[in-house]
Amino acid sequence: MYRFSCDYSEGCHPRILKALAQTNLEQTAGYGKDPYCDRARELLRQAAQAPDADVHFLVGGTQANTTVIASLLRPHQGVLSAETGHIHVHESGAIESTGHKILPLPSSDGKITAAQVEEAINAHYADANYEHTVQPAMVYISHPTESGTLYSKAELTALSKVCRSYHVPLYVDGARLAYGLTAASSDLTLPDLAQLCDILCVGGTKCGALFGEAVMIFSSQWKGDFRYMIKQRGGMLAKGRLLGLQFLTLFTDGLYFEAAANANRLADKIRDALKKNGYPLLYGAAANQVFTQVSDSALDFLSSKYAFDLWGKPDADHTIIRICTSWATDEDAVGDLIISLQAAAK
Amino acid sequence: MYRFSCDYSEGCHPRILKALAQTNLEQTAGYGKDPYCDRARELLRQAAQAPDADVHFLVGGTQANTTVIASLLRPHQGVLSAETGHIHVHESGAIESTGHKILPLPSSDGKITAAQVEEAINAHYADANYEHTVQPAMVYISHPTESGTLYSKAELTALSKVCRSYHVPLYVDGARLAYGLTAASSDLTLPDLAQLCDILCVGGTKCGALFGEAVMIFSSQWKGDFRYMIKQRGGMLAKGRLLGLQFLTLFTDGLYFEAAANANRLADKIRDALKKNGYPLLYGAAANQVFTQVSDSALDFLSSKYAFDLWGKPDADHTIIRICTSWATDEDAVGDLIISLQAAAK
Amino acid sequence: MYRFSCDYSEGCHPRILKALAQTNLEQTAGYGKDPYCDRARELLRQAAQAPDADVHFLVGGTQANTTVIASLLRPHQGVLSAETGHIHVHESGAIESTGHKILPLPSSDGKITAAQVEEAINAHYADANYEHTVQPAMVYISHPTESGTLYSKAELTALSKVCRSYHVPLYVDGARLAYGLTAASSDLTLPDLAQLCDILCVGGTKCGALFGEAVMIFSSQWKGDFRYMIKQRGGMLAKGRLLGLQFLTLFTDGLYFEAAANANRLADKIRDALKKNGYPLLYGAAANQVFTQVSDSALDFLSSKYAFDLWGKPDADHTIIRICTSWATDEDAVGDLIISLQAAAK
Amino acid sequence: MYRFSCDYSEGCHPRILKALAQTNLEQTAGYGKDPYCDRARELLRQAAQAPDADVHFLVGGTQANTTVIASLLRPHQGVLSAETGHIHVHESGAIESTGHKILPLPSSDGKITAAQVEEAINAHYADANYEHTVQPAMVYISHPTESGTLYSKAELTALSKVCRSYHVPLYVDGARLAYGLTAASSDLTLPDLAQLCDILCVGGTKCGALFGEAVMIFSSQWKGDFRYMIKQRGGMLAKGRLLGLQFLTLFTDGLYFEAAANANRLADKIRDALKKNGYPLLYGAAANQVFTQVSDSALDFLSSKYAFDLWGKPDADHTIIRICTSWATDEDAVGDLIISLQAAAK
Repeated sequence: MYRFSCDYSEGCHPRILKALAQTNLEQTAGYGKDPYCDRARELLRQAAQAPDADVHFLVGGTQANTTVIASLLRPHQGVLSAETGHIHVHESGAIESTGHKILPLPSSDGKITAAQVEEAINAHYADANYEHTVQPAMVYISHPTESGTLYSKAELTALSKVCRSYHVPLYVDGARLAYGLTAASSDLTLPDLAQLCDILCVGGTKCGALFGEAVMIFSSQWKGDFRYMIKQRGGMLAKGRLLGLQFLTLFTDGLYFEAAANANRLADKIRDALKKNGYPLLYGAAANQVFTQVSDSALDFLSSKYAFDLWGKPDADHTIIRICTSWATDEDAVGDLIISLQAAAK
Repeated sequence: MYRFSCDYSEGCHPRILKALAQTNLEQTAGYGKDPYCDRARELLRQAAQAPDADVHFLVGGTQANTTVIASLLRPHQGVLSAETGHIHVHESGAIESTGHKILPLPSSDGKITAAQVEEAINAHYADANYEHTVQPAMVYISHPTESGTLYSKAELTALSKVCRSYHVPLYVDGARLAYGLTAASSDLTLPDLAQLCDILCVGGTKCGALFGEAVMIFSSQWKGDFRYMIKQRGGMLAKGRLLGLQFLTLFTDGLYFEAAANANRLADKIRDALKKNGYPLLYGAAANQVFTQVSDSALDFLSSKYAFDLWGKPDADHTIIRICTSWATDEDAVGDLIISLQAAAK
Repeated sequence: MYRFSCDYSEGCHPRILKALAQTNLEQTAGYGKDPYCDRARELLRQAAQAPDADVHFLVGGTQANTTVIASLLRPHQGVLSAETGHIHVHESGAIESTGHKILPLPSSDGKITAAQVEEAINAHYADANYEHTVQPAMVYISHPTESGTLYSKAELTALSKVCRSYHVPLYVDGARLAYGLTAASSDLTLPDLAQLCDILCVGGTKCGALFGEAVMIFSSQWKGDFRYMIKQRGGMLAKGRLLGLQFLTLFTDGLYFEAAANANRLADKIRDALKKNGYPLLYGAAANQVFTQVSDSALDFLSSKYAFDLWGKPDADHTIIRICTSWATDEDAVGDLIISLQAAAK
Repeated sequence: MYRFSCDYSEGCHPRILKALAQTNLEQTAGYGKDPYCDRARELLRQAAQAPDADVHFLVGGTQANTTVIASLLRPHQGVLSAETGHIHVHESGAIESTGHKILPLPSSDGKITAAQVEEAINAHYADANYEHTVQPAMVYISHPTESGTLYSKAELTALSKVCRSYHVPLYVDGARLAYGLTAASSDLTLPDLAQLCDILCVGGTKCGALFGEAVMIFSSQWKGDFRYMIKQRGGMLAKGRLLGLQFLTLFTDGLYFEAAANANRLADKIRDALKKNGYPLLYGAAANQVFTQVSDSALDFLSSKYAFDLWGKPDADHTIIRICTSWATDEDAVGDLIISLQAAAK
């Protein structure tokens, strides 16, 4: 059975394993104070054209989100997020465990708009007893979103403008950032993100690393004491160089983007095949996640050969599935899948 | 410069790298539900002779400690620990960040006694207003301790007995467990620990893994819903198999113990050399951590060739240092160090 | 201007002031260990026909809700509540500040149903990755609700049955309990509540006391160590007798119910007048809260003489208002209001 | 039996009860937005000669301490306190429940010094891995202290200077402030405190009120959004005027100070009698708390007529007791006590 269920089914890009092997018995300082981390930080700053950014490496995504949000908010403050946001629905209450309410905004495609954020902030202060409700003090988005959609540069610029006018930091969770930035339909670049958001998480786990996320803090206001926060939240790896080495490898010779572009190309092939065979393409998802709806009999047939993520049942006879490619996806497996999708469509 | 400063200066035991490479492009389920994790769990249960233990893999030590303690305590409860306990002095307030006070007990060698625990619990309830103070509801020890000392089987049995008579769970942080169990002076085994404590953290990071800690829960009372806690605290690795593979390797053919025994042997050589040359051996440390005191001029000389951890200044002219060996320590480097120590002693 | 905006505009029932004055210079033990608290506890147990209930007095409602919920839940657990629940929308994130997510259920009238609770619990466990989401582990309702509605005995019995079958405790926030139990349309009694829920908050602040809420814990499972929790959450009044004296007075000669019944009678008069004059009665609110919709010109006229709580704007020209009576409401003021409502209706 | 065990055995100063009775049926806005609160705020500002201070009223001391500390600290920060500080030993872990570690400093008399604070801060940053420990970011003292001692103006000035040079706010818990400021040996005034500290809690509960503490924030840096924090922590009384009325009464015609001065006078009489009869006066306590040591046979005799707070057993045959006077202490009871102390001394 071939897994199209997620982008973390395999280990890591072979170049990373090689880098780990080559440096394995070297001795370095711990906790991210080694030369590999330093060089990786420098490469990330260059890629983002953000020479003053602080760059920190954390182990995982839930950890990165929690550490960033807990670092920014005071106790009475909450974070605005799409109701489908990962922090709201798939992190076991990690944000709340740090004392903060997530303030969900309705969303049909995983994105939120500048107008929604502005309205939520205004509505808060319009209440005579606003101090009895949680203060919206931060905006969380993911790019790509949980639904696989992408913010356009215009949308993100509008969001950024509202956030800045209300002095509310904008945090972008880029767990799948590599795929987002290299999608055919994307007009956003890493330097754009560095300009438009205050804090960015550059995902490694789903983008070719064994594990690891890089948090880039662009606004000096939010830089202070972040390493304490990482340590307190359990994200400061003793052998921090493992994170440095991985990001160093990913950001050398554009591997991060190249591997993702290939995954997107394969996802686009699947999308083409679905369209041709009458399957709907849902949510407007781009990049490496493909959402479609299949009859349950088709699903039975397909499930004997492939694993997908089940995304819900719109009615008694159909299921929404997610098909996910990655840096590791086998092109032949995609070819087989396309043949199976044709067969199941009949 | 050769680092004797800690046991996490290198990567991992070569057999682990090999296992990662061999399985790298295999597809598995995420979040610790893969066959490698299952087999590793089974090996740990066998090694501990605890067939009913729950075994969970987490990324790091602060994370493991925080997750275990937050999982066990109700909000008004605290955890008894040596005042030198890692959770009290080196985790940036991680335990407090989950709402719990650490109740420190005085300790000159990193250990606490059954009598101290009993006295603390009795003193709490003897106060007419005991509800105005934090309830001692859990005991944290590390083995080896922060001072490199080891509990004897008799000491741990006494501690366990007190804990059970007061219905207070006993948690053992074994970040360096491999070294502790294979020290020449140790009379404790892994099955002993499984019998005497309620929860045990079997350290990987400092014992040959790239990263990773295995939490073994022996008492059924504390097993429930632990995976939610791991996820909430950011410890559930998407590619969970990385943890499984590492512990599988470490617990195959006794690698975990063999590699540690070698580190202990080298530490014992250093101890012998120190003794011969008139350096004091501090705290009664056994296993892979060696504490001694050197004059600052000796330190200057030694520091040009070796890195140590500085442990404090007892007076203006002397420094306490920690010399640490590990699974990766080079025997020749130890030989050189011994020569340097002789030279510095003169 | 006469305030119909809430039920806490005045001080307290004169009998309470008298009790405070009569006992003012008596010396008693602090922290709720005095004879007045003991007698008040006994009267509450009698009124609820719950001889084994634990009774605790806390200062305010947010405090009571937070203390109860934090006492019951483990870190990964959340509380099901109507999306309009007071804990979700009017307590500044107090519940989240203790680390717990509120799991909101849709509600048009402030109530939630047994079926909704059952569905939410089943949906949670139906997710293959349920450990990545917050576990529904408690149910919060208020009686009366935020919308002034009342649970029938049948509805509460169904809710209780579902909660017990899933081992999920049911907590009833009775900030306005006196009004709820004495509403003409109510078929629930205090002993019914004691049978059907696990924990009940018997409101004092809005029901004739200066301040104070009595938490009754009926299920022995949830009784342990609650006084620690009160102290930790800042709810243990040094002069605890002030709370005891107030509840003692309220539960002597049925004052609690008598005073509320009078407020309900006046609210019913207002409801009759609204109906006669063509104003809608919203939500099905019973007891002492009356919700209606008025044109903004009518509101301008009325607001010169009365204060109401503004509950939202359904369209550009209308406003939903809440008219609230209490134990202190002046019958003449109600008469005047009715005349004004007639005038405004024209 | 007459209680000398604490200063909260009675209700409140009769003038407060009168004020409550006179205004009982007036209608006011809730949550501290009423004219009585406004006038009380103004009187407090005048008394402190701090026209720009923000003044908030909270219900109790644990609540005030917790709200202030949680409002000021970021997650990785802790609060320096004497090891005997109320927050450290008598608040059931309330501070830790908000996620913060208390960093205790040794103290034999309840006070801490400027030198201790400076040393603690310097020691923190001297650690190469300082990010692995909790950052000292705030100083908590009480005046009078738990041991009844008073800071001199010189001591507090030195403490203030160190705090400001390290940008660490200084919070003074004045639960018994009235007694402290009117003690014969005190050279500190309320305006001094307003100049020297950043935040001050002016105690009501132990100084003549039924309940209530006034938090004065002098530094604009710490003023923002404090009302949210009060609401979240359960300290925002619906009938907020009850707090306003009490502080209005206490700060009219100097009642706050006058009542306390009388309590101090009676405590001084007891101190004189103790001295004359050979009892030790412990800790250097001034103001309304008197600490002495009695033989257990003397204690048996005295306990038949008086209640004291037991403060520990220095040896098998003696007990340290606290004798506390208050605004309500009966002069005749003090006379009787003095006779009993003479009798017990023989």
